[in-house]
Amino acid sequence: MSTTTNVSAGRGLEDVVASPSSICFIDGNKGILAYRGYDIHDLAERSTFEETAYLLWFGRLPTAAELQSLRQDLRQASSAPASALELLARFHAASPEALPMDTLRSVVSALGVQDPDARDMSREANVRKSVRLLAQTATLVAALDRIRKGKTPVAPATDLSLAGNFLYMLNGTRPSATAERAFDIALILHADHEFNASTFAARVIAATLSDIHSAVTGAIGALKGPLHGGANEAVINLLLKVGDNDPIVYIKDLIAKKVKIPGFGHRVYHTEDPRATHLRQMSRELCQAAGMNKLYEHSSQIEAYIKSEKKLNPNVDFYSASAYYAMGISPDLYTPIFAVSRMSGWTAHVLEQYADNRLIRPRADYIGPQVPQKYVAVDQR
Amino acid sequence: MSTTTNVSAGRGLEDVVASPSSICFIDGNKGILAYRGYDIHDLAERSTFEETAYLLWFGRLPTAAELQSLRQDLRQASSAPASALELLARFHAASPEALPMDTLRSVVSALGVQDPDARDMSREANVRKSVRLLAQTATLVAALDRIRKGKTPVAPATDLSLAGNFLYMLNGTRPSATAERAFDIALILHADHEFNASTFAARVIAATLSDIHSAVTGAIGALKGPLHGGANEAVINLLLKVGDNDPIVYIKDLIAKKVKIPGFGHRVYHTEDPRATHLRQMSRELCQAAGMNKLYEHSSQIEAYIKSEKKLNPNVDFYSASAYYAMGISPDLYTPIFAVSRMSGWTAHVLEQYADNRLIRPRADYIGPQVPQKYVAVDQR
Repeated sequence: MSTTTNVSAGRGLEDVVASPSSICFIDGNKGILAYRGYDIHDLAERSTFEETAYLLWFGRLPTAAELQSLRQDLRQASSAPASALELLARFHAASPEALPMDTLRSVVSALGVQDPDARDMSREANVRKSVRLLAQTATLVAALDRIRKGKTPVAPATDLSLAGNFLYMLNGTRPSATAERAFDIALILHADHEFNASTFAARVIAATLSDIHSAVTGAIGALKGPLHGGANEAVINLLLKVGDNDPIVYIKDLIAKKVKIPGFGHRVYHTEDPRATHLRQMSRELCQAAGMNKLYEHSSQIEAYIKSEKKLNPNVDFYSASAYYAMGISPDLYTPIFAVSRMSGWTAHVLEQYADNRLIRPRADYIGPQVPQKYVAVDQR
Repeated sequence: MSTTTNVSAGRGLEDVVASPSSICFIDGNKGILAYRGYDIHDLAERSTFEETAYLLWFGRLPTAAELQSLRQDLRQASSAPASALELLARFHAASPEALPMDTLRSVVSALGVQDPDARDMSREANVRKSVRLLAQTATLVAALDRIRKGKTPVAPATDLSLAGNFLYMLNGTRPSATAERAFDIALILHADHEFNASTFAARVIAATLSDIHSAVTGAIGALKGPLHGGANEAVINLLLKVGDNDPIVYIKDLIAKKVKIPGFGHRVYHTEDPRATHLRQMSRELCQAAGMNKLYEHSSQIEAYIKSEKKLNPNVDFYSASAYYAMGISPDLYTPIFAVSRMSGWTAHVLEQYADNRLIRPRADYIGPQVPQKYVAVDQR
């Protein structure tokens, strides 16, 4: 019944090119992921998360001075407004069992209400807001976890990387160099992934020329979903349910019950997700260091089984689950941590959308009742 | 440089069919708009907003008993949680100049933190949340306006329609039958519009199987943009700037300066927007009743000029601006009011998305630096 539409797309816009972008390159057949042209393996092995965020925002790697300046700006912004911390406490008091992603979405939205650049849509103001959003989100996720555990939020340190500072604000003790570096790599690996659902949601919102806080608030909402960022929490819950049992017996039973195994398969990758390569190694090392070898071994066994039975590869969520668990992070904080990292990519995409904007407004294929239906008054129905 | 994509779409997904839908039919060439098969003219002339919301949610018009039951549920839900009203007061105290859409986005998100069905994704729970979201949004928009004007929020009446109750909670006095009916029609006309940007944002978020509060929070963020719901506020600001001057002289000057005139043209309609037909009449009647004939006349003159010069028709935003102004509503409340109405459509689309879900995840056409770029250490840059 469509009358003006002319491009019929796959469901879920699968394989539909929504717009040009210079930020992220993915070759799903060869398993290549690159930010601004830089291969993810080079960035994971040689870069830092701050440098990666700069790369995403500005399109090139920073000089030493530019990197130093960004680090300072991030540290300065990492002291979240007192009102945001109060809001976290209020949400916790009213709903002690609140889902962290619901709280995070609301507090990040509230940051937009009082952002000093709230009405400024210049590129300069939006870069300032991006830096603030990244640093503030890290602080708020750590504070959220402490508040719900009855602990006082920890003020950010002035001499740590964003990754190190996050672990410090979370635990109240300075992280080991190994833990800081592992977490930094995890942030790099999760920073961007082209037009994934949350980034695409952010771009749809930004394309009305709404503000960047609106865009990333929508993105946090999208990331929460179990078909997106929520999957890493589902993976650890599965591994914890396996416990000391045989993981293959457990998985076979789930498959027989037609339960989807989280952490496998990807809309875009038809081979190994290059991020999984790093996260697998990280999981092995961190599990070993934490005396949780079984967690890694079970993960590895499940990977082999799903590969042979379902021809599916682990995605970014599968090994990040055991890696974060070995670092002592609460499972329902994995998706909020994903949001901390992806905040860099979301804001980069919003900046790109603003720079060459067009409203994103597709059509529906109408399959409802014939038009017009005869209107019958309520007393005659 | 794309490797796996195969459908090249127009920019902004123009004319791309994103998915099937049974909710809204638009024929942009003939100027037809129908909800669930019912022509918008029939609904505007014979229906009520409550009935229209039922139609959008359930796919058919309610019986008298079903309508009565929905009215009761809406009235019950219109007492917003005390914590939400407190939050409004806090936002106002911290940022007296806050943009109402930023505040609304944050408070609606916060409703999700403590919704009694927060973790329940059943259709029944999502219908309950939809009813609550619609009633609570109306209450919160009215309360927001009173709080920022230093007035006490007005508790909802138990015997008024949603439209009448909104005007009552806004003004503190019961509206005339004429005002209530005019506002009810405005709500019907704005209730849904297929895959507009905010509804599409809501569906992208819902398609990760995230919750309905996440989806509508993102939608509010999208509606805020001046290329979407923000346009009605831009229209009244333009009309107020014209003041007693000749509107054509003023408009000619803007066009010469290449300023876009808000309230004209539409991605989908190539003829008169059927909603504009009703809003024009409503604007004429309300301006006359309020002794603001000049506001209507200027609107009418601008419409004629833009039609002849630019071949553009007024859209839903053009005459709603003068109609709301004649009703004494503050200009920066027009977009929040749009959100009250569209909450019915957003939630209907989210329910439809959940019922037959597929992750919405398009691809980008990568136009960035060649992969791989050579990584050079920071001290050698």
